Amino acid sequence: MSAMDAADLRIRTLGECRISSPLRGLVTRHGTTEHYVDETDRVLFDDTVAMLAGRNGGDLPSFEPGGPRRHIYFDPSKIRVGIVTCGGLCPGLNDVIRGLVLELTSHYGVSRIVGFRNGYRGLVARHGHDVEELTPARVQHINEHGGTVLGTSRGNQDPAEIVDCLDQLGINILFVIGGDGSMRGAQRIAREIADRDRRIAVVGVPKTIDNDIPWIGHSFGFQTAFGKATESIRAAHTEATAQPGGVGLVQLMGRHSGFIACYAALATNDADYVLIPEVPVDVDAFLPHLRRRVRERGHALVVVAEGAGQNYLPAEGTDASGNRSLGDFGIYLRRRILDDFTAAGTEINLKYIDPSYVIRSVPANPYDSVYCLRLAQAAVHAAMAGRTELVVGTWRNRFVHVPIPLAVATRNQVDPDGDLWMSVREATGQPASFTTPATDRAAA
Amino acid sequence: MSAMDAADLRIRTLGECRISSPLRGLVTRHGTTEHYVDETDRVLFDDTVAMLAGRNGGDLPSFEPGGPRRHIYFDPSKIRVGIVTCGGLCPGLNDVIRGLVLELTSHYGVSRIVGFRNGYRGLVARHGHDVEELTPARVQHINEHGGTVLGTSRGNQDPAEIVDCLDQLGINILFVIGGDGSMRGAQRIAREIADRDRRIAVVGVPKTIDNDIPWIGHSFGFQTAFGKATESIRAAHTEATAQPGGVGLVQLMGRHSGFIACYAALATNDADYVLIPEVPVDVDAFLPHLRRRVRERGHALVVVAEGAGQNYLPAEGTDASGNRSLGDFGIYLRRRILDDFTAAGTEINLKYIDPSYVIRSVPANPYDSVYCLRLAQAAVHAAMAGRTELVVGTWRNRFVHVPIPLAVATRNQVDPDGDLWMSVREATGQPASFTTPATDRAAA
Amino acid sequence: MSAMDAADLRIRTLGECRISSPLRGLVTRHGTTEHYVDETDRVLFDDTVAMLAGRNGGDLPSFEPGGPRRHIYFDPSKIRVGIVTCGGLCPGLNDVIRGLVLELTSHYGVSRIVGFRNGYRGLVARHGHDVEELTPARVQHINEHGGTVLGTSRGNQDPAEIVDCLDQLGINILFVIGGDGSMRGAQRIAREIADRDRRIAVVGVPKTIDNDIPWIGHSFGFQTAFGKATESIRAAHTEATAQPGGVGLVQLMGRHSGFIACYAALATNDADYVLIPEVPVDVDAFLPHLRRRVRERGHALVVVAEGAGQNYLPAEGTDASGNRSLGDFGIYLRRRILDDFTAAGTEINLKYIDPSYVIRSVPANPYDSVYCLRLAQAAVHAAMAGRTELVVGTWRNRFVHVPIPLAVATRNQVDPDGDLWMSVREATGQPASFTTPATDRAAA
Amino acid sequence: MSAMDAADLRIRTLGECRISSPLRGLVTRHGTTEHYVDETDRVLFDDTVAMLAGRNGGDLPSFEPGGPRRHIYFDPSKIRVGIVTCGGLCPGLNDVIRGLVLELTSHYGVSRIVGFRNGYRGLVARHGHDVEELTPARVQHINEHGGTVLGTSRGNQDPAEIVDCLDQLGINILFVIGGDGSMRGAQRIAREIADRDRRIAVVGVPKTIDNDIPWIGHSFGFQTAFGKATESIRAAHTEATAQPGGVGLVQLMGRHSGFIACYAALATNDADYVLIPEVPVDVDAFLPHLRRRVRERGHALVVVAEGAGQNYLPAEGTDASGNRSLGDFGIYLRRRILDDFTAAGTEINLKYIDPSYVIRSVPANPYDSVYCLRLAQAAVHAAMAGRTELVVGTWRNRFVHVPIPLAVATRNQVDPDGDLWMSVREATGQPASFTTPATDRAAA
Repeated sequence: MSAMDAADLRIRTLGECRISSPLRGLVTRHGTTEHYVDETDRVLFDDTVAMLAGRNGGDLPSFEPGGPRRHIYFDPSKIRVGIVTCGGLCPGLNDVIRGLVLELTSHYGVSRIVGFRNGYRGLVARHGHDVEELTPARVQHINEHGGTVLGTSRGNQDPAEIVDCLDQLGINILFVIGGDGSMRGAQRIAREIADRDRRIAVVGVPKTIDNDIPWIGHSFGFQTAFGKATESIRAAHTEATAQPGGVGLVQLMGRHSGFIACYAALATNDADYVLIPEVPVDVDAFLPHLRRRVRERGHALVVVAEGAGQNYLPAEGTDASGNRSLGDFGIYLRRRILDDFTAAGTEINLKYIDPSYVIRSVPANPYDSVYCLRLAQAAVHAAMAGRTELVVGTWRNRFVHVPIPLAVATRNQVDPDGDLWMSVREATGQPASFTTPATDRAAA
Repeated sequence: MSAMDAADLRIRTLGECRISSPLRGLVTRHGTTEHYVDETDRVLFDDTVAMLAGRNGGDLPSFEPGGPRRHIYFDPSKIRVGIVTCGGLCPGLNDVIRGLVLELTSHYGVSRIVGFRNGYRGLVARHGHDVEELTPARVQHINEHGGTVLGTSRGNQDPAEIVDCLDQLGINILFVIGGDGSMRGAQRIAREIADRDRRIAVVGVPKTIDNDIPWIGHSFGFQTAFGKATESIRAAHTEATAQPGGVGLVQLMGRHSGFIACYAALATNDADYVLIPEVPVDVDAFLPHLRRRVRERGHALVVVAEGAGQNYLPAEGTDASGNRSLGDFGIYLRRRILDDFTAAGTEINLKYIDPSYVIRSVPANPYDSVYCLRLAQAAVHAAMAGRTELVVGTWRNRFVHVPIPLAVATRNQVDPDGDLWMSVREATGQPASFTTPATDRAAA
Repeated sequence: MSAMDAADLRIRTLGECRISSPLRGLVTRHGTTEHYVDETDRVLFDDTVAMLAGRNGGDLPSFEPGGPRRHIYFDPSKIRVGIVTCGGLCPGLNDVIRGLVLELTSHYGVSRIVGFRNGYRGLVARHGHDVEELTPARVQHINEHGGTVLGTSRGNQDPAEIVDCLDQLGINILFVIGGDGSMRGAQRIAREIADRDRRIAVVGVPKTIDNDIPWIGHSFGFQTAFGKATESIRAAHTEATAQPGGVGLVQLMGRHSGFIACYAALATNDADYVLIPEVPVDVDAFLPHLRRRVRERGHALVVVAEGAGQNYLPAEGTDASGNRSLGDFGIYLRRRILDDFTAAGTEINLKYIDPSYVIRSVPANPYDSVYCLRLAQAAVHAAMAGRTELVVGTWRNRFVHVPIPLAVATRNQVDPDGDLWMSVREATGQPASFTTPATDRAAA
Repeated sequence: MSAMDAADLRIRTLGECRISSPLRGLVTRHGTTEHYVDETDRVLFDDTVAMLAGRNGGDLPSFEPGGPRRHIYFDPSKIRVGIVTCGGLCPGLNDVIRGLVLELTSHYGVSRIVGFRNGYRGLVARHGHDVEELTPARVQHINEHGGTVLGTSRGNQDPAEIVDCLDQLGINILFVIGGDGSMRGAQRIAREIADRDRRIAVVGVPKTIDNDIPWIGHSFGFQTAFGKATESIRAAHTEATAQPGGVGLVQLMGRHSGFIACYAALATNDADYVLIPEVPVDVDAFLPHLRRRVRERGHALVVVAEGAGQNYLPAEGTDASGNRSLGDFGIYLRRRILDDFTAAGTEINLKYIDPSYVIRSVPANPYDSVYCLRLAQAAVHAAMAGRTELVVGTWRNRFVHVPIPLAVATRNQVDPDGDLWMSVREATGQPASFTTPATDRAAA
């Protein structure tokens, strides 16, 4: 799907879905804060000159801003709140949990908060309604650790069973911290709630280490992750430059989006090649170029996102633990490079590094900690104001309410025609010839 | 000046100054890049609904976007480029220098680049035209160190002498990396160049560890700086919670803008009070509140920006080395707190921490490294395209050209009515009573 | 006291005190470990040729090695253990607590362990017998945080009241983690226990961030502390080299021993001067040397331990919070340097950095974590085997039992005639003339 | 070879080799230092009571201590010095290079120092005598980077060609920083020099990230390396505890010696199993134990040294780049664990982490920086005093001269009956049954 199509889709999708769906009914006066969001305030989707021409402001596509409301929906002294973390680990999960608990208790005075263990499983009777009380004391230091104190698991569960659980435990607000799959699950839960006419708000905090969820700026944990990945790139460069025929090859996370590879490569500005899923690579054109680079400079550094070059790999398998198989592109490329240099009789000292889980299980860096806290504050404000079926994000430096359908309708990717990829191209000096979209290559 | 006034000023100022002033004359075809900025593209200043209502896109105040141009002004093979760093240290200076050198050499093929030593001094004959050649080999590892390899100094020099130097050395482009004072100096240099009708571009990369320059999003080095400051806050919290009557008091940089204090405090979410220059503090109201907090919780954590509470201090002096005198608010508050607890017979274990220069002399973190590189790329593109008297910045996630007069007309500050301060207020739970704007207090 | 006198004292002291005093009575067979220390094994104090000549091995002064014993004194299923942390913070306190708890529970099967809050205060009825249960779950992540989860306080309490408390709570083993003052307190407690003929073991883990306790090799947390201090030295060097007339001045912890200053200075090998308490400084000789160095090289870096040059300071006071007064040598020297350069008309940009509490409140680095764990293991083995009135340490790469009187009889200091100081002298190139022991200077 | 045999060998070997072989001839008075090593001073090999009994000090096996000598062999103003780094990367290489250069220039006044590029290759005419001048300015910041600025390569070269090169370039001292293979090469070079009756000193600084060289305490870079490895263990533990059936499996460096695995595991004290080359593992006994552990606690953490369990692997191959093949034990064990859990129908989420090169290419931590500097100082003192065919090390906290034959005669390994392994056993609680030496198991 091209960038233009995606933009069209976003606007179409928005037209079809409720904007930060308010719950019906009861309104409570919120008297402890002096700063409120004006209910008519909006954050525009797009402010290019072309898009604005001929419009007035009134009908522009826009998000509802996040923040505290003068009128809140729930009575803090009476409600019970649940929190669940789903999917793979990501730096900042514990910051979000802690931020939710502290904002609920300190700012709103909510005292009954439970965490569900191990993702949606903890919300299903079959798995035992595994919950723990979350208090300020319990979450005191959790932001200093990676992972999630609640545990996590992959996959969704039956929405009906989950709403049964929410009913049974008397939950009024459910916060879901998870990826796009989990958000689809959250939406099904919200729909089930609506069908049963329950007054339970479902608010998501979107999690994606690959930064591939739209409308949330950089996703939380992303800076921490690519910062950690930078260490591997530095290591590979150090190895490559220390030995004759040195080639550093680093594989980083990024199934569908190459943001981590791009940012980590730019951070040291030492990479000679960055290969990402968004831009097809022609390995047969790449190899001789690499050999020439090594011959001329004595060394080279290659950074690949795991999802690049998938056309060179057999349909992927997963092992029992759900880990990625050895069909990774990095492993494939390693073999191809070694074979190519060997065939050409060129000396090579290839060092392959894959930091894998290390970059996603570290604690959040200070920037991400701030971001997680503010996302948590926004999520709490949204839920307390009776919004549901939304995720919190940031758009043009404002915290906003993004309807779940919009958040899962598209995928955030590196734009091959955009500024970021151009920065990478300029920094690496890599030619377009073996990294142009396949259709272009066919045309050329 | 209120926020509204500032906005008005910005727009008035813009009307009066050239937008990324193009140099007159010669145009060279730039043939090595496939991705160019459309010359009619613009980034809007403001896209609130109110501002957009009744306008069409054509006449909206806007910035020229940064990026490579199809037509460039200078012939890379013939020009000589100068780089100078001015003012106090900031994480990322060496990344910017390295980014400029690598972009000039690798992307444009410029081979003659010099660095001027010790700020504007290095451009003045009296101080000896202290220059060094900058090559890719010279800048290879400099991004791994803090500080600036070119050295720096404070204060401006006579623009006429500086332009004499540029003439003498045959400099075609001067990159100035410095703060608002240095940018005013850069503007005077550009004006002197214009008066002499020379074809020398002056392009700035704005530096401010306090994040107090407008139109550049977060200034480079800011994330690194507040991240490092977070360590002091964590240390103070650890000390405060470990001992009976523990009070941690941390003073952070921020003469006029409290961004570092706010972000560093949010990063750990442990602070009980954050005091910043933008929001007046009533120490007499603060002290009993602090004592009560210590009595109730056993400990407290106070974060102050150095520029807070200046009304309590005598007019400030500076010592021979230009360092701040002992009149810092942190030192003053330390004394007041100790006196107050002593007078009240309350046990106190106060730990005072001021990380001072440590937070500004560290290497940039990976995020700032990426940002510095991209600012450097944008600065090189701007200069090569013949733009002058501008600084590069980011606005609404685009790199933009900001006319120097606009960049120095206002100061970026924490908005006491904005989202950031509200997040701090919610996170600390501190009352408004002793941190409300003075005028409000007078009215109350 | 000269090094020779100290050695004599050590041996005399040893003769007078019990060696890792065994308790009388009950012996339990310890059946779960295959690796035991031979009861006749000894680690020699001193193995210089001169000392060994004319002796046979039998009567050499020696320590009892640490480690598990075949026969243990206490029945793990019946005993209750107490842990207390005293004095200032030090990296690794939580590692030691965690190590004690995990070794007691996992290896010996002890299930009843309590922590006393806020140092010896927690053992005194007046302060409320403030205790908390310590379980493996409670200590799971505490090693990732600085400080001590038990809290701490300064000063000793009445031994009689403390033993009353131990009696009342049924404590069989008390682990004291603290400095020399706390160890003297532990000795008095052990004596009181002996006087009452109780079967309670008192075992210490010596804590000193200054590395000034003898017989324990490097004290735990020392490497972490000087490693953290290195950041300040690097920052000061970066500042000093970035500006004309740059002088970096760093004050580090070290009241009586300059180990942190020496090691942190060696770590970057950039310092021009290191001033420590063990070697008197003549400031009037130092200042012109410094000025010459700045004139010749453009910058200089000075590292001082807080306890250096005390003869230049008035008798020291402490404020209400027990913090050091502004009479620090670093502050004094800062003033003297500024005055001296000003008087000489020499440009100076002096940057003063004192990391203070930051270096003692960080989590332990991996080396110190290992060391803390092994000290904790040794302490538990010693106590379970019925040893009392001792501290664990390392001597010649073995863990040993050091009788408390021996551990507090002397102070570990940098030997002005030893290898470490010689390394510092060679690395800095600083002359002996203004840092020779006063007596030598008088003689010269 | 048992520990007892090794000790015998060490003493026999010592008898056969010259102790820090002095060169014959010219002696220069060394007048700039006040602190000297007494030429009769010795550091004992062994000071166990058993070993000392019946001896007097005079004939005890001992090392010559390192340090500055009153009389030096070379005239600093006339000599030329060469430095070469060989073998794999290790944290601290640049610190050693910088320490050698600064000690030679600042302390002794040697001004002509060259670095040979890419290991012994740079000393061979065929490869082009690739040298670069080493000055204080050149080495100013290199300690802040990992790797080696001189480059490195594996393998030895013809000693005759190397001595030809030394002759040709007029080298008087050659410093070799490398592993045991490189030290054997250094010895052959020294023998060739002796055969030619040249006055060229060859002094080694032993490098081994695995800490497997005897007589040098911890090898430089070891603390940095295991500290970095700790991050992978923490990541694996975070992953394992966050998901149902979580198993973390971390493979660390250590072909023959498991020190990194042991120390890194102790640093977090979270591992359930540590498998090292020194202690055979019975995988068939291990697997059911692991499954039980996961069932009981919900998760498990396994740390393996790459050289463990080699009996389970086919004879190892190496690929073109000299990297280890996929026959690593970690990869093998990963497969066995997955198969075993699958066969048993037990849920498993296995996360495999191998930090590989990342742990060896980072800059040295502050402790290792100090150690590298002091080793460099000792090496310079030894060479200047005319010692040759030795490496510098530390033994019982003294820097010593270790004859090369002694340094390469044995391998430092984790003693299965020693304190370190006992600490690991206690910390993990792992049974001896599947990690007992094979001979014991046979006997049982």
